Amino acid sequence: MKGFRGAFLDFIGDPFYLSELESVRYFPDGLLVIENGIIQALGNYVDICAIYPNISVTHYRDRLILPGFIDTHIHFPQTEMISAYGEQLLEWLNKYTFPTERKFKEKTYAKKIAAFCLDELLKNGTTTALVLTTVFPESTDAFFEEARDRNLRMIAGKVMMDRNAPDYLKDTAKSSYEETKNLIHKWHQNDRLLYAVTPRFAATSTEEQLQLAGQLLQEFPDVYLHTHLSENVKEVAWIKELFPHCTNYLDVYDRAGLVCDRSIFAHGIQLSEAEFKRLSEANSTISFCPTSNLFLGSGLFKLNRAKSPEEPIKVGLGTDVGAGTSFSLLQTANEGYKVSQLQGHKLSPFQALFLVTLGGARALNLEEKIGNFDKGKEADFIVINLQAMPLLALRNRGEIPKTVEEIGDRIFALMMLGDDRAISETYILGDRVSPSVSSTPNTIQ
Amino acid sequence: MKGFRGAFLDFIGDPFYLSELESVRYFPDGLLVIENGIIQALGNYVDICAIYPNISVTHYRDRLILPGFIDTHIHFPQTEMISAYGEQLLEWLNKYTFPTERKFKEKTYAKKIAAFCLDELLKNGTTTALVLTTVFPESTDAFFEEARDRNLRMIAGKVMMDRNAPDYLKDTAKSSYEETKNLIHKWHQNDRLLYAVTPRFAATSTEEQLQLAGQLLQEFPDVYLHTHLSENVKEVAWIKELFPHCTNYLDVYDRAGLVCDRSIFAHGIQLSEAEFKRLSEANSTISFCPTSNLFLGSGLFKLNRAKSPEEPIKVGLGTDVGAGTSFSLLQTANEGYKVSQLQGHKLSPFQALFLVTLGGARALNLEEKIGNFDKGKEADFIVINLQAMPLLALRNRGEIPKTVEEIGDRIFALMMLGDDRAISETYILGDRVSPSVSSTPNTIQ
Repeated sequence: MKGFRGAFLDFIGDPFYLSELESVRYFPDGLLVIENGIIQALGNYVDICAIYPNISVTHYRDRLILPGFIDTHIHFPQTEMISAYGEQLLEWLNKYTFPTERKFKEKTYAKKIAAFCLDELLKNGTTTALVLTTVFPESTDAFFEEARDRNLRMIAGKVMMDRNAPDYLKDTAKSSYEETKNLIHKWHQNDRLLYAVTPRFAATSTEEQLQLAGQLLQEFPDVYLHTHLSENVKEVAWIKELFPHCTNYLDVYDRAGLVCDRSIFAHGIQLSEAEFKRLSEANSTISFCPTSNLFLGSGLFKLNRAKSPEEPIKVGLGTDVGAGTSFSLLQTANEGYKVSQLQGHKLSPFQALFLVTLGGARALNLEEKIGNFDKGKEADFIVINLQAMPLLALRNRGEIPKTVEEIGDRIFALMMLGDDRAISETYILGDRVSPSVSSTPNTIQ
Repeated sequence: MKGFRGAFLDFIGDPFYLSELESVRYFPDGLLVIENGIIQALGNYVDICAIYPNISVTHYRDRLILPGFIDTHIHFPQTEMISAYGEQLLEWLNKYTFPTERKFKEKTYAKKIAAFCLDELLKNGTTTALVLTTVFPESTDAFFEEARDRNLRMIAGKVMMDRNAPDYLKDTAKSSYEETKNLIHKWHQNDRLLYAVTPRFAATSTEEQLQLAGQLLQEFPDVYLHTHLSENVKEVAWIKELFPHCTNYLDVYDRAGLVCDRSIFAHGIQLSEAEFKRLSEANSTISFCPTSNLFLGSGLFKLNRAKSPEEPIKVGLGTDVGAGTSFSLLQTANEGYKVSQLQGHKLSPFQALFLVTLGGARALNLEEKIGNFDKGKEADFIVINLQAMPLLALRNRGEIPKTVEEIGDRIFALMMLGDDRAISETYILGDRVSPSVSSTPNTIQ
């Protein structure tokens, strides 16, 4: 049993719907107690210390401790092609993405990039992610192996795509079904790992493949469905051509049985009102990926609509690397704020922080395991230096604040100005992570 | 006389109008020769070395050397209030900006923040900026003194505002005229410093004050005019109310004689076609400030319209700290790219780099002094590590490229992923800058 002392902040409710008093929990001088990687207690230092008088305590003075961040949409094989110039979605896929993903048939290579990607995530304070691999099961194995070696709570899946892609990247409806089934048996619930059935998007799957994806969800009722939805105007028009009998984009997935409370849809920029309603009804999740949506010129996500109290939809934040331009969920929140401002809405620091902690956990149906410091949860957490760089230090002058209002202001500055330098430490199941040396860029050919 | 060896890139023309061949100059192994802070020669290492065989050479292996960046719009007193939450322009001014600027009546304080701001600029590779101070001449003196101590080419001016602001921040038409005149005598052409007549924006000046600003431009024909223009929808409506007899926002300035080839207008988000035409005709400059325009939700600047070949307008890039969210012109270019993508246009890496080097110099009518490595120009330059962070190193694998096309790709990644960490060194007049220690955040009360 061990303890960590510092300022702790987490959520016990959703600040999109509840007041700060009802949603935010803040201990300016708190103590977190952990045993075997599981949280035993969190509270004011003086109170908790009295209950556990003999534990050894690591004291993070002047630091803010948060639950590990949760990234609800990322492509690990696109790490090396981040910031590919000049295209919008469909051209970008053909020009940059498909040729890059081809390399991931080779497992050795895939392991190197998986290691690099996980190091970047951890360095940026992200401890759980929902991850696309490639069409090659080797790449899925590579990712899960690296994640297991690090004891991470990760969700991933092999991409299913049997049309409208280069031959070298295509599977078939049948092979994708078989390979996915094998991977589920191998990796789902293996240590902390979970599986997501992952058709890339409607345009690259035949109806037969989508139907078989739906069948997998029936056979394995606790795996996830992870795909893309309604990102780009040209894409939506193409889906309409490809599936003329469907009423809208979401309906393509719905007819295959892919719209459920374990479904995560990335983007949803161009959604109609009918699709928003259906997502709410099905209790599905949208992953909001602002840096990607801006980088590809896809448009502005209607976060306010998605989080409407009348027809709420679960929302998480996603980096969407490599169309996203940062591994940092702080930087992602920065651009999420800007996307909201452009629409005349205010994304508060607590709302943004909720999206990457408890909100992300709810978006991935992992609220029982991660997302805040409740007793019994897995102890993935991060230590933040609110004054990590000179400008941040000037903006966030003074000691760690005592009030929720003041810490909210500091967190807002952290999101606008911070990046990986503000993440002092990342802990997985109560153990401090050291970056691996296996993944230095120069060793990756 | 001294030499610097490395890969050099600069511009000899405008890549918005000319081909890369006609606009970009690239020496993968180049030599720059400097005497008394002035550039004597730039060319291939082997060629230039033959002409200057005995000079001592600093070799920046695997580094890219660029002209110092030029920031065409920044408020130094807003440094400490960067990332102020939740408001759009007019409310943001009243809630955060005015109370902050009040502190700058005290010169000692203003000097500390000026020093901090200049250190941030230099650390981010910015060697020249067009700067607003506050209504207090003390703050203008403070900024100019700190800039002179560092031998910098800087343009600044006292803010003129005689209405629609708190009493503690108001001058009068007459006092602003007198104070500005004194400051021009004191600072314009003092070492490398230049003066900009700076009415804040039309709403905070009476017509009398604007007229007197115009009179100053007549009396001192080589000073600048620096103000804000058409940033926010509510602001534009307000200007219409305040100046019902003017045909549009720009016309308010035009009637006071403020629209000329030395005028720099920040933002111009909501400009009408008539205003674009008039700016082109007058050869005025717009400062495009993407991080600020997104942060305040002001909107998307029509860069493509401003840079139209038929009616071209000079454009520079501005951080607009404190409404802008970064001192880095790399990060500013990142968001400039996104603003263009959202409008279906591609901002190329060379176009973006032009805006912060030669384009910025042209925007400020300083092409004779700075902006590229032409013989006779002032030797302000920066040394870039294209592999400064692991992710950037992975994306920009391999040696410094030999071709313009490849270096363009690396520069694009630098703009998307880079920040102050990618700026290895900043040189002013051929001398390497060390950050001052006078401005650590904890010493600023």
